[in-house]
Amino acid sequence: MKPSIPKGTRDFGAAETAKRNYIFNTIREVYALYGFAQIETPALENLSTLMGKYGEEGDKLLFKVLNSGDFLSKVSAEELSERNTLHLAAKVCEKGLRYDLTVPFARYVVQHREELQMPFRRYQIQPVWRADRPQKGRYREFYQCDADIVGSNSLLNEVELVQIIDEVFSRFGIRVSIKINNRKILAGIAEMVGAADRLTDITVAIDKLDKIGLHAVCDELRAAGLTEDAISRLQPVINLSGTNAEKLATMRQVLADSEAGLLGIGEVEAVLRHVEAAAPRNAIDFDLTLARGLNYYTGCIFEVKALDVQIGSITGGGRYDNLTGIFGLPGLSGVGISFGADRIYDVLTQLDLFPQAAVQGTRLLFLNFGEREATACLAMARQTRAAGIATEVYPDSVKMKKQMSYANAQGIPYVALVGEQELAEGRIALKDMQSGEQQSLTIEEAISAIKNDKDTP
Amino acid sequence: MKPSIPKGTRDFGAAETAKRNYIFNTIREVYALYGFAQIETPALENLSTLMGKYGEEGDKLLFKVLNSGDFLSKVSAEELSERNTLHLAAKVCEKGLRYDLTVPFARYVVQHREELQMPFRRYQIQPVWRADRPQKGRYREFYQCDADIVGSNSLLNEVELVQIIDEVFSRFGIRVSIKINNRKILAGIAEMVGAADRLTDITVAIDKLDKIGLHAVCDELRAAGLTEDAISRLQPVINLSGTNAEKLATMRQVLADSEAGLLGIGEVEAVLRHVEAAAPRNAIDFDLTLARGLNYYTGCIFEVKALDVQIGSITGGGRYDNLTGIFGLPGLSGVGISFGADRIYDVLTQLDLFPQAAVQGTRLLFLNFGEREATACLAMARQTRAAGIATEVYPDSVKMKKQMSYANAQGIPYVALVGEQELAEGRIALKDMQSGEQQSLTIEEAISAIKNDKDTP
Repeated sequence: MKPSIPKGTRDFGAAETAKRNYIFNTIREVYALYGFAQIETPALENLSTLMGKYGEEGDKLLFKVLNSGDFLSKVSAEELSERNTLHLAAKVCEKGLRYDLTVPFARYVVQHREELQMPFRRYQIQPVWRADRPQKGRYREFYQCDADIVGSNSLLNEVELVQIIDEVFSRFGIRVSIKINNRKILAGIAEMVGAADRLTDITVAIDKLDKIGLHAVCDELRAAGLTEDAISRLQPVINLSGTNAEKLATMRQVLADSEAGLLGIGEVEAVLRHVEAAAPRNAIDFDLTLARGLNYYTGCIFEVKALDVQIGSITGGGRYDNLTGIFGLPGLSGVGISFGADRIYDVLTQLDLFPQAAVQGTRLLFLNFGEREATACLAMARQTRAAGIATEVYPDSVKMKKQMSYANAQGIPYVALVGEQELAEGRIALKDMQSGEQQSLTIEEAISAIKNDKDTP
Repeated sequence: MKPSIPKGTRDFGAAETAKRNYIFNTIREVYALYGFAQIETPALENLSTLMGKYGEEGDKLLFKVLNSGDFLSKVSAEELSERNTLHLAAKVCEKGLRYDLTVPFARYVVQHREELQMPFRRYQIQPVWRADRPQKGRYREFYQCDADIVGSNSLLNEVELVQIIDEVFSRFGIRVSIKINNRKILAGIAEMVGAADRLTDITVAIDKLDKIGLHAVCDELRAAGLTEDAISRLQPVINLSGTNAEKLATMRQVLADSEAGLLGIGEVEAVLRHVEAAAPRNAIDFDLTLARGLNYYTGCIFEVKALDVQIGSITGGGRYDNLTGIFGLPGLSGVGISFGADRIYDVLTQLDLFPQAAVQGTRLLFLNFGEREATACLAMARQTRAAGIATEVYPDSVKMKKQMSYANAQGIPYVALVGEQELAEGRIALKDMQSGEQQSLTIEEAISAIKNDKDTP
């Protein structure tokens, strides 16, 4: 029986891993340029840290790790016979796999607050686990790439996060729309229609405008208990159009009586003013239908859509005002973003944007014509490697056809043939596998030729 | 109550993560230069893949993940009341966390054999989990850094792995002894003393020579059932000394009647001949007391000791002939090595060898003197970042003393002060935090000054 891996998990082969590393490294480099420091937290967290942080549904989606040793020692016969799985799981499992990077980050900030300098800027690129039903594009183990700043209320943080998004997608060559909205504007709208306690329902409904259309959104608002009057007052808001400045001006009038609303508009205006002064390469769009599902956001929120591929949001984020409060450290404001590596992978694949040099493995293969030749090749491989050229020496002296087909299958662009004659002449025959051309060169000449190839990293 | 993380796991802050990345990246770069391609396998494996692969003790040390949903649905009342934890764990858990990278690699090779080119060279740098009792230097979650080649019997693979070890530790600046032995030599010795079935006992006992001394080793051999005659015939072997060539010559005589033994000696000689021809920077020592605990090794085995720090082996490896056999693909020989990242971290720390440039975070901080100045700083930060300088703009316009103490605590080497006067002159005041010197420069001059600092990456 062929071995397999759990549903919803993946093996990444050489080509996929190289492409994924290109994505992670690009994000990493930009984060570092903006002064974010990388941290890492353990995959295993105490369940007391994770439970209750993602809602009831989230608790069920946590992977729980069975206590080692006699995990039943604290479970009574009665408890066993009751078969209450939630209760029993809590008794036999103390640890779980992290569900996202946000809660471990909040836990980290509180646990290490004495050592940390505020504002604290960190990034984190690590896998997370969710016992979700696996389906296309949804995995049980996947990476998140988060950057957050906590301990600063300044909107400059929002500005820099938008600049990071702009820079990362410019480096990828993916054209995007960076959408921005503000939870305070949404709160102002709820206030205005006399349904301040219905904020979640309203944002969730507005969030669906693209997908289900105006009519269905109104139906949802009705179902959520909004009056016809409120719904009709919401119409101009839902149908808002024009440039950022036009939309913001309209909203400023609509929300003239809402303190929160005006505050939110001011925040979006300030962020846009700074971002636009720096000539971003991608469009920044004020989008009132952007709500984002997570309820902990309290200020600006962001989302990124690829312009040339039909796919959901590929990056998101926003400001939250009390993330560390759940661990006993209230009053610390933060703002963060998260790049969706799997979706970015799909976009880069569909648009054929992975640069050859970034995903290039071995550049040069020395064929093996026997013990004596191989010894000479090992010495030359030392030189090519010292020059930074990823090099292999075929380890076995098998038929040349087999060795060549290995080079072909691996996509190795250069093959060096060093037989008796080359050995005597102190030269190598360098074959360009793409053109089929073969040249007799010294090892130094071969190194130059390969280094000058534009695809050599 | 302060939140915490599970025993045996660790948070890595900014400085530690930077240092760990330096270690991983160095190993990664060398692996890639030798044509190894990175792959990644999931943290979660089916328990059917993991169980029975690490001995009875290993099975107990596997972290098992509770099935989601009604995990008791297939457990009868009788089974519950029996409280057989091993049996119940198998019923309520299908998945576990990987225990090492070797078994997942073997699983990967078998599962993907149709897509793979042989010889298959891969490296893998990922965490593993073990429910070991945590103690100093032993963690429940830690990284392994493995490289293996399967599908080739050639000793050139051993040669290249030794060269990789030599190169990696040269790059680190750690002086090491690379120890080499061969399981066939050990088998030959067992044969010679008429105790071929006692190979494990003999190698385990010889392995302890350094720790417990000759006398205790002989006691252990006695306890293992070896005759006095056998033990006395082992003496010259255990007491072997001299250069590699002398030791090998002695062993060639001692093992003159053992086919396996002579084969092993020939293998070590061939590897040493090739490695030494390439002028390694570290000593390669034939060491008969090297046995390595894992029973799956069948040919050459390696271990690396740091010369200037008292610490256990910091790298190990060897050839195994049937790793994939457990998953139904017999006859595939392989050879691999694994760098011990945690111990290497300790050695680099003790010898103060982490290069400043590799662990450097933010290089330049723009202080924040208010809205107008900050706007100008954001624009200049775009320039410094475009020049590759990791830059922060302090987000809040708070007291200068607070901003400066942030720069100090974070170890940021340059601070830019842009006040009203600098703004008017189009210059910045660049302060070197180490020397305390302050210069009035244009932004272009500041960029040059920082780029010319030898610690700037």
